[in-house]
Amino acid sequence: MTIQELKEKVFEANLDLVKNGLVIYTWGNVSGIDREKGLVAIKPSGVSYEKMRPEDIVILDLEGNIVEGSLRPSSDTPTHLVLYKAFPSIGGVVHTHSTFATAWAQAGMDISCLGTTHADYFYGPIPCTDDMTPEMIEGDYEKNTGIAIVERMVGIDPVATPGVLVKNHGPFTWGKTPSEAVYHATVLEKIAEITLHTLALNPDADIRRELIEKHYLRKHGPKATYGQG
Amino acid sequence: MTIQELKEKVFEANLDLVKNGLVIYTWGNVSGIDREKGLVAIKPSGVSYEKMRPEDIVILDLEGNIVEGSLRPSSDTPTHLVLYKAFPSIGGVVHTHSTFATAWAQAGMDISCLGTTHADYFYGPIPCTDDMTPEMIEGDYEKNTGIAIVERMVGIDPVATPGVLVKNHGPFTWGKTPSEAVYHATVLEKIAEITLHTLALNPDADIRRELIEKHYLRKHGPKATYGQG
Amino acid sequence: MTIQELKEKVFEANLDLVKNGLVIYTWGNVSGIDREKGLVAIKPSGVSYEKMRPEDIVILDLEGNIVEGSLRPSSDTPTHLVLYKAFPSIGGVVHTHSTFATAWAQAGMDISCLGTTHADYFYGPIPCTDDMTPEMIEGDYEKNTGIAIVERMVGIDPVATPGVLVKNHGPFTWGKTPSEAVYHATVLEKIAEITLHTLALNPDADIRRELIEKHYLRKHGPKATYGQG
Amino acid sequence: MTIQELKEKVFEANLDLVKNGLVIYTWGNVSGIDREKGLVAIKPSGVSYEKMRPEDIVILDLEGNIVEGSLRPSSDTPTHLVLYKAFPSIGGVVHTHSTFATAWAQAGMDISCLGTTHADYFYGPIPCTDDMTPEMIEGDYEKNTGIAIVERMVGIDPVATPGVLVKNHGPFTWGKTPSEAVYHATVLEKIAEITLHTLALNPDADIRRELIEKHYLRKHGPKATYGQG
Repeated sequence: MTIQELKEKVFEANLDLVKNGLVIYTWGNVSGIDREKGLVAIKPSGVSYEKMRPEDIVILDLEGNIVEGSLRPSSDTPTHLVLYKAFPSIGGVVHTHSTFATAWAQAGMDISCLGTTHADYFYGPIPCTDDMTPEMIEGDYEKNTGIAIVERMVGIDPVATPGVLVKNHGPFTWGKTPSEAVYHATVLEKIAEITLHTLALNPDADIRRELIEKHYLRKHGPKATYGQG
Repeated sequence: MTIQELKEKVFEANLDLVKNGLVIYTWGNVSGIDREKGLVAIKPSGVSYEKMRPEDIVILDLEGNIVEGSLRPSSDTPTHLVLYKAFPSIGGVVHTHSTFATAWAQAGMDISCLGTTHADYFYGPIPCTDDMTPEMIEGDYEKNTGIAIVERMVGIDPVATPGVLVKNHGPFTWGKTPSEAVYHATVLEKIAEITLHTLALNPDADIRRELIEKHYLRKHGPKATYGQG
Repeated sequence: MTIQELKEKVFEANLDLVKNGLVIYTWGNVSGIDREKGLVAIKPSGVSYEKMRPEDIVILDLEGNIVEGSLRPSSDTPTHLVLYKAFPSIGGVVHTHSTFATAWAQAGMDISCLGTTHADYFYGPIPCTDDMTPEMIEGDYEKNTGIAIVERMVGIDPVATPGVLVKNHGPFTWGKTPSEAVYHATVLEKIAEITLHTLALNPDADIRRELIEKHYLRKHGPKATYGQG
Repeated sequence: MTIQELKEKVFEANLDLVKNGLVIYTWGNVSGIDREKGLVAIKPSGVSYEKMRPEDIVILDLEGNIVEGSLRPSSDTPTHLVLYKAFPSIGGVVHTHSTFATAWAQAGMDISCLGTTHADYFYGPIPCTDDMTPEMIEGDYEKNTGIAIVERMVGIDPVATPGVLVKNHGPFTWGKTPSEAVYHATVLEKIAEITLHTLALNPDADIRRELIEKHYLRKHGPKATYGQG
């Protein structure tokens, strides 16, 4: 994959955020990484989706040095970089303020797995980070946001749980590619909506652990039977 | 009806799930049956609605043997087959993860009939299945899902109650044709939404039994007066 | 106005129900009246909005005798006729199963006036009818639905309160023309949505009576200052 | 900027209310001011967005005298004029009845800042005005609505809090330009929706003050790092 191809993938994935109803204005960003070259492509900061062109995508190394591009990268770039370093298996990262996922993040609550829609993609609850300390907020905030995510994911496999809620902020998701990260952001938003309605109907709703395992494992891992693979 | 015509009907009915806002990605499937030939047509597994073509529809016999088609059938196929065997009057089956119906399924609650919108199509509550046992989940899961539905429908006429909620999963609906099964899936989703809002306003809402009977019977059965029939 | 013109107005008003998101399938109907001729135009029963043509609109007299048209009129026709007889100032009637208004109807609750959006169109609560008795339901049901509406409106000016909720059923609205009746159906649905959310935030929300009066009277009556009139 | 250019900006901003899903029918209005000339451009009263043309925009001085235009200005004009006089830094004002913001206004509640989506635009709660007295309502009502807003904003910087909820009515927002005022109306509606869902999930949700400060100040003021500025 050339850098030009990476830029185009990241550009298309950013537009899909709008198409899938996850963002208005500049409320989201997608990045992608070329692991061999060690280069990250990310949306420029504060540029509207209508005006953005593929050549506006900014290329950085993993330390955040700009390698290509005349625009400033997304203000959330340091968060993306922390995630790429901590989770070597991921190839794309998405951040949005999508309505229902953000409501859960503002509520400071993990999204319990209460159904197979959730279990098909997330193998357990979708975790919400803890409060960041005043020091983390007042310090290198965007980098510390990434650290808060990584700390919350300790003991959780990022492949089986491809997203988190950052408390009082919104969702971050990831995937093997930028496009898969957008896919997971879209799924997370729909799960957030369904589960909010579920708890309104029945605050004590629950699920058998075996059902979560059945669904996750029929789509993922060596015994998967779903799809045409 | 030729097998080709059945494939096209099932193909169109699958696309209607997207058009009616009931599914995103691959979150649903429609099948149809030719009772004379004993053949079932169903969506292939994990194929997106944008890419699917009529010739991708898979043809099976009622034992699940593939008769025509190069793709693997929907992973939910064994559930559909159980329903066709148990309910001889039905000609189409639909499964979705539509938002509000899935919320009720996750809540593990029957949808009480609280209005004429519901009573025009479902002659009483829309039932939710019981928890499947760990043995049912770990065994022949998709077939056992069908068995759980059929067990829940004991004593209930599948023509007068053309759909159920599978607990922690989502709705299955059926009808005389694939198209009517989609129609019932669309109605069920709208009823699920209206009734959720109803209970938010008034948890004690109820309805006179006579009103349910009046509405169901003016659209169905020998004394129906609705439409141009 | 010729009968042909009345048919076209009623046809267009029926299509506006779909355009305004108030109905799916055949879940609604609009009628209009020519008071001079004593003739009512109404949607045919069970005909989908996609297939309906202006010439399908049925013409009846106020006793329900078909004067023109080869199709059966809407099954709700007797309700419309009762309203035209009881409220001489109205020229159009609408019935829908729009989501939020139907939720209030199923809850069996009047929609309290809690804001100026409501007061701009409805001069007080939007009333919900009482339960119909088993005798009313089992008798001439559609006509009795009209009678239940008229009984609920005793002491209420139908011009200042251009719609009601029929308990466990859905909204009926009216206006000087079929188009204005659709306008009121659209407003009622939006008010139903806003007020449901209001009560979720604050079950004790209320409003000063003077504010209702100010808003209703600045848009209606001899002292109106709104618009270009 | 010529008056013709101001008219066109105000015209386009009014159409954006419809495009952004904030208004139906005539339920909103945008104005803009030329501070040098002391002239305000505003939507005409009761004219639908489909029929409105740029030349229908009405031009007034700050005392409300019509300088140009053959139509009556929006009935809310006196409210806009009070805001322009009280807040010298603003260049555009918007009023809508958007669904979720209006629900909060009807509930009579400030929207607490519970997340970064909110803090990126509003530096603290979005305030709701107090009840207007019967005298204020029965007197010069639209002007008094402006006075109620200004009284509620005492001690609050209108640049850092670019909008309020008028109790039992709906939101007013403002900005440096008519277009920015529409932007703030759109943001306010989305925040109102997210925060309503947040409280449904967790009535005790809260946020660290440092996080609000971090987000507001990274987009606004001398230390802003967001965007391409």
